[in-house]
Amino acid sequence: MNDRAIGVFDSGLGGLTCVKELKKLMPNESIIYFGDTGRVPYGTRSRETIIKYVSQNIRFLKTFGVKLIAAACGTASTLALEEAKAAAGDIPVIGVVEGASEDAARATKNGRIGVIGTPATIGSGAYERKLKSLRPDIYIKSAACPLFVPVVENGRADKDDPIVKILVREYLSGIKDDGCDTLILGCTHYPLLRDAISEYLGGGVSLIDSGRSAALKVAQYVLENSLEAHKPGQSQFYVSDANVYNFSSLAGMFLGEDIGADVLKADIEKY
Amino acid sequence: MNDRAIGVFDSGLGGLTCVKELKKLMPNESIIYFGDTGRVPYGTRSRETIIKYVSQNIRFLKTFGVKLIAAACGTASTLALEEAKAAAGDIPVIGVVEGASEDAARATKNGRIGVIGTPATIGSGAYERKLKSLRPDIYIKSAACPLFVPVVENGRADKDDPIVKILVREYLSGIKDDGCDTLILGCTHYPLLRDAISEYLGGGVSLIDSGRSAALKVAQYVLENSLEAHKPGQSQFYVSDANVYNFSSLAGMFLGEDIGADVLKADIEKY
Repeated sequence: MNDRAIGVFDSGLGGLTCVKELKKLMPNESIIYFGDTGRVPYGTRSRETIIKYVSQNIRFLKTFGVKLIAAACGTASTLALEEAKAAAGDIPVIGVVEGASEDAARATKNGRIGVIGTPATIGSGAYERKLKSLRPDIYIKSAACPLFVPVVENGRADKDDPIVKILVREYLSGIKDDGCDTLILGCTHYPLLRDAISEYLGGGVSLIDSGRSAALKVAQYVLENSLEAHKPGQSQFYVSDANVYNFSSLAGMFLGEDIGADVLKADIEKY
Repeated sequence: MNDRAIGVFDSGLGGLTCVKELKKLMPNESIIYFGDTGRVPYGTRSRETIIKYVSQNIRFLKTFGVKLIAAACGTASTLALEEAKAAAGDIPVIGVVEGASEDAARATKNGRIGVIGTPATIGSGAYERKLKSLRPDIYIKSAACPLFVPVVENGRADKDDPIVKILVREYLSGIKDDGCDTLILGCTHYPLLRDAISEYLGGGVSLIDSGRSAALKVAQYVLENSLEAHKPGQSQFYVSDANVYNFSSLAGMFLGEDIGADVLKADIEKY
């Protein structure tokens, strides 16, 4: 059991920000990554469609006999976590909301937290509910950022990119005006925009990377359940569209290192 | 046969710019529209994936017994037209490349034509080949515009929208510098950006709306083959994601009038 891989999925490349942290925390673990590059983005689709796609992703990852699945996708975690767990059966599924909300509730000093995510994530209210359950006195300001995923998946993330600058100001001005001292990056694509966001909000605002928070939750689960790998493993990367966005080269941007493996094609509609 | 509908499909909303022209040219015709809103955009995906999606769209439209199919999608027309025809069997399929190229070759006075499209369309070289076959002496400058579709599908098309302004300048500066007097809008989403593009390039540049060119080709085919509807028909609109982008309200933006019909959900992966 211990030497089975950890499954990680996302709508596209964003979940690699979670993989990056998992590799730091548990370098021995094997990871099976699935990026749904044939159907990205998720965050502007309906809940019904997101549930269908997420359930297929879970069934695909289960074929590898994974010991645990990380839903490293803000949209999947906020709209389809229960359905993901149902599809996973006895395999535990860890999303990004719980860890990121806990980290944000701990980080804030003034009790004012901003949350950004896809339109689907913000519409779900999932972060607000979790934060309120942790600290009912907290003030929350949410903002949907519909163009962040397409922009980042097109390889644009530089803080001086004019499109990035305009969108950051447009989407985050309400959060800045409300004096939030902590911001949840509620989509695993957003850590790539960290520099741009930080420059706009100012260095004093804590940015909570939901991919990293999920990786910490996964590591905690693995340790608490004595599921650590006994020997160094190997990672594998699957996508539903083999060619798109030059996955391998863009992946390096998300992972912070060369992907170091072949990227394979999965026929996800079959699952 | 004559009172059968005309099938029209696109990756999302763009094909409605073709529907708008079809309704003007042949108000009696019934139209079955399919927008693949569950898998939009196409233009940043691989050819293999585009072929799979387009073949499913064709098989779906065939279930309505349509008399003709318009591939009102630049990406489908440039990367998967032969495969679309194969899937359609004895139903004729008309794409956007032929009509738009002919209209552009007729419109240019200085023999310099710009072509814009999705990365997949521009990478295919389909417009260049068609234009060169019509007029070998023509100079062609192409530019891929990867963010136009996500921006337009998010409802941003106003010429004063700062994101639209920056992207138009970024994508079209080479075409402007090269003195093209004619520009093919090689994706059916782009006519919504007509004002922004025209303001940047100047009013002297002819903009060729590929959706309109395809509608003219369809009308010509219908007339030449005596396939006109004998009585006023009804249109139906299908999407693969029912909720996305508030289809009905955004559709009005593309159609230039209220959609005036229910939008139904199709389970496109089954076809």
